Amino acid sequence: MCRWLAYTGGAIPMGELIFNTRHSLIDQSLSATSSVQVTNGDGFGVGWYDHLSTPGLYKNIQPAWNDANLHDLCTHIRSPLFLAHVRASTGTAIQHSNCHPFRSGSCLFVHNGAIREFARVKRALSIELSDDYYQQLEGNTDSELMFLLAMQFGMAENVYAGIARMVGFVEKAAWAAGVKHPIQMTLGISEGERLHAVRYSSEQDSRTLFLSRNIEALRAELGPRGQAVAEQLTDEARCIVSEPLSELQDFWQLVPESTYLVVEHGKVETRPFHPEVP
Amino acid sequence: MCRWLAYTGGAIPMGELIFNTRHSLIDQSLSATSSVQVTNGDGFGVGWYDHLSTPGLYKNIQPAWNDANLHDLCTHIRSPLFLAHVRASTGTAIQHSNCHPFRSGSCLFVHNGAIREFARVKRALSIELSDDYYQQLEGNTDSELMFLLAMQFGMAENVYAGIARMVGFVEKAAWAAGVKHPIQMTLGISEGERLHAVRYSSEQDSRTLFLSRNIEALRAELGPRGQAVAEQLTDEARCIVSEPLSELQDFWQLVPESTYLVVEHGKVETRPFHPEVP
Amino acid sequence: MCRWLAYTGGAIPMGELIFNTRHSLIDQSLSATSSVQVTNGDGFGVGWYDHLSTPGLYKNIQPAWNDANLHDLCTHIRSPLFLAHVRASTGTAIQHSNCHPFRSGSCLFVHNGAIREFARVKRALSIELSDDYYQQLEGNTDSELMFLLAMQFGMAENVYAGIARMVGFVEKAAWAAGVKHPIQMTLGISEGERLHAVRYSSEQDSRTLFLSRNIEALRAELGPRGQAVAEQLTDEARCIVSEPLSELQDFWQLVPESTYLVVEHGKVETRPFHPEVP
Amino acid sequence: MCRWLAYTGGAIPMGELIFNTRHSLIDQSLSATSSVQVTNGDGFGVGWYDHLSTPGLYKNIQPAWNDANLHDLCTHIRSPLFLAHVRASTGTAIQHSNCHPFRSGSCLFVHNGAIREFARVKRALSIELSDDYYQQLEGNTDSELMFLLAMQFGMAENVYAGIARMVGFVEKAAWAAGVKHPIQMTLGISEGERLHAVRYSSEQDSRTLFLSRNIEALRAELGPRGQAVAEQLTDEARCIVSEPLSELQDFWQLVPESTYLVVEHGKVETRPFHPEVP
Repeated sequence: MCRWLAYTGGAIPMGELIFNTRHSLIDQSLSATSSVQVTNGDGFGVGWYDHLSTPGLYKNIQPAWNDANLHDLCTHIRSPLFLAHVRASTGTAIQHSNCHPFRSGSCLFVHNGAIREFARVKRALSIELSDDYYQQLEGNTDSELMFLLAMQFGMAENVYAGIARMVGFVEKAAWAAGVKHPIQMTLGISEGERLHAVRYSSEQDSRTLFLSRNIEALRAELGPRGQAVAEQLTDEARCIVSEPLSELQDFWQLVPESTYLVVEHGKVETRPFHPEVP
Repeated sequence: MCRWLAYTGGAIPMGELIFNTRHSLIDQSLSATSSVQVTNGDGFGVGWYDHLSTPGLYKNIQPAWNDANLHDLCTHIRSPLFLAHVRASTGTAIQHSNCHPFRSGSCLFVHNGAIREFARVKRALSIELSDDYYQQLEGNTDSELMFLLAMQFGMAENVYAGIARMVGFVEKAAWAAGVKHPIQMTLGISEGERLHAVRYSSEQDSRTLFLSRNIEALRAELGPRGQAVAEQLTDEARCIVSEPLSELQDFWQLVPESTYLVVEHGKVETRPFHPEVP
Repeated sequence: MCRWLAYTGGAIPMGELIFNTRHSLIDQSLSATSSVQVTNGDGFGVGWYDHLSTPGLYKNIQPAWNDANLHDLCTHIRSPLFLAHVRASTGTAIQHSNCHPFRSGSCLFVHNGAIREFARVKRALSIELSDDYYQQLEGNTDSELMFLLAMQFGMAENVYAGIARMVGFVEKAAWAAGVKHPIQMTLGISEGERLHAVRYSSEQDSRTLFLSRNIEALRAELGPRGQAVAEQLTDEARCIVSEPLSELQDFWQLVPESTYLVVEHGKVETRPFHPEVP
Repeated sequence: MCRWLAYTGGAIPMGELIFNTRHSLIDQSLSATSSVQVTNGDGFGVGWYDHLSTPGLYKNIQPAWNDANLHDLCTHIRSPLFLAHVRASTGTAIQHSNCHPFRSGSCLFVHNGAIREFARVKRALSIELSDDYYQQLEGNTDSELMFLLAMQFGMAENVYAGIARMVGFVEKAAWAAGVKHPIQMTLGISEGERLHAVRYSSEQDSRTLFLSRNIEALRAELGPRGQAVAEQLTDEARCIVSEPLSELQDFWQLVPESTYLVVEHGKVETRPFHPEVP
């Protein structure tokens, strides 16, 4: 499927985590080690927050490793909260609107996983969208639809509730259509203030998700080359990833099954994740 | 809006009409003369029939005039029936799936025009699609939706009926939503055997559409440079265009308002076009 | 040919001048009014300075008006010194490396114009490059070659001298090959501290180049919508453009023929431009 | 580096070998098994011969596996002689002009390998080109330069001689610059009539190159799915590849070190390859 990375902490150049770590997201786009698909070369995206209310977005259908602009942008843009994603399509088109992160208002959203047998339930799920959210649909992925459903279920105000209702709704509709184990997902989300993540799958066998243990973990990842940046990292710095940014696995903590977590000012809160039928 | 061109007759290299005429489709992409928008640089596409049952398709989000492959493909591929389209977006994304022609089974479809206030009726129109056709939606244009609705209303078997019902359905739904004059369109269609075209708009003030008068018209368009090809043109050769391929307007016949026409073996049949509420 | 824009002054979001003015560079990419070619849709680029020594660069082969990322980047990135360019190819390939600005070390360079009969002198000019500069050649335009020659002739230390020697060298080589009036150019350049521009052509009939008269000119261009930004504009703000950003031509001063100008802290110095044979 | 495939025989849809074999070139673009680099996702190209004197060319900077047009083109275009290439950049730009095959007149050329320390000798090699060939340079790869040098050394008339002189010249120039083992290459070439290949490296340790043993080999590769096509394959059909199209290695014959081979009407001639200093 895909690989993603999210960061919150003091403002740093995005490239430090996206490019400069030992097993960076760029490496993972060429050669992921704990993914079902090795190559994540079907587009990518980066979303970041700064002083504006709407986050910035840069997405492209080229592989991340050979985009001539991405390195420059990640070197020059500093952000205290950003999400990045490299895509491996499971069949849907390679187009801008199918790349993550998805954005609506001040929310950003990345997804690794799938709605199983999506073709069978796509229409049933889509027509739940109001005219306003339906109008925002630009592509044809399960991920974009999950995002817009969660928005409609109130994610902008309450991330946990919006996601729980979205998952409850999707599972109910898919079960009604005879789909077993409909959802497989790790999610990275921000409403502009905090960083949220969810690890969940209907069959309780979810894709991996890792949280950096502490500031030392990030310092270690950056290595000697990233010394200047490492010193700028505040104690609040945390990173969430589909797979660790190096073989330094001690620095990374596996997020448990069916878990929601939120990071704010370096504090991490976790709670069990339970879908809700809206 | 857009510009398009369709040809039926003996097999010729597609480039002869797309590139080599005096005011070719490529010129029109840079500088259309009878279009609302002068530049049609938001992607393009070519669809062609040959010995296979499924037509070939080449689409790209670059402007037609600066695509490095299009000239080669149009020079090498010979076809007895093809449609080409240059796009000027009216706001929807510049992505592969929003480029024309649209294809389903053996049908190809190009559109110049719009559904007015599409945002207001997009969801209402979309949910009319069956699961199967809904699943084929890849982009977010009014044109793709019109195409899939017409397919569902039987266009593959009866082009006139499929289009008439699609228009009747869209107008009814849009009127119900308070949209005046909902449809503006010229369409080029093939089911793989004949070339069909429709000129229609709800307010009876449709975009232009022209039919080449006869074989002499095409010979004249090709000019001295296209002599070799001109000699290959059979008497059956006909071309339908949004705007003439040169200033030789005598060779082009304006298709009347609210008209459907079909070309088969060089014979042109026209009939008034009346939407039908399905 | 092309259109370009350069700004120096207090840091502003680049989009204010690139997108939000009345006849913005984006409008000019679709429809330039004082250009030989109306459409400048063969790629674009933006280069900007910030706290790093190497300027940032974002280039793409799509037309500027339909790039989905450009608006976001220009809205989020603030810079006190930037150059933007929309390209109309005169025959060379539509590829990333042919888009402006060109960058080497801390220098940025944009060009509108051409070396006449470039094919005849390309090799003779190229072999003047040292191994180091030759190695930096990535594309095949006259503009990139002019840039690297100027670098080799010392532009990074002395912009006037580097350009004067480059022009002198190109003219001499082209004259030797029998090319009349070899150079046509307006240039925008920065070495990271000041903004430089040159208007020159061998036949003394150069493309237009305009300098904003003063801070009021820029405020007027931004209009009511740009009020917030207009207030941030410092007295030092100056803009140089291929053609004015609106019909408010009083606010723009035509740069005279054969002129070099440099802007530093809002002060403009001009001097006659004379090529030097190196 | 890269992977390539070349075919000569009765006209077949190019996709049968490019897409439909067990370990097709498309699979190899995602995951090559005997390559230094696993992923060959930095662009691709296909060149084919038909009734015209100039071969057709389709190249793109997207990975071959996610180009929406490639499958259609390869399904519809039938050719008796074609070359296809998937690229893994070793540092040079991802741009159209750096993709293979290269074309000049009726010649096509694909390359897997490199000129070692190319940066050190690039200028010295380039200035050997005449004005005419220099003018054809569009990109910045060692491969394009090798191609144009071979053209200048007479490849269009005598493929062996053109290549031998090019290699001799490159080795001599590189040795003079202190580069050890300058050339590593497998080449696929056609002048429009025959298919030529060379396996060579200065250190006599060349990248792999395989020739299909006979018609049975190709039939076996196509498998049950390709039955219809397999029956069209004539006895003359031969295929040359960087790595076999499946694990059926018995069907593939390793081309020996320092070997030139040419296929004409199904007959294969081989001879030792010796560089010549021109």
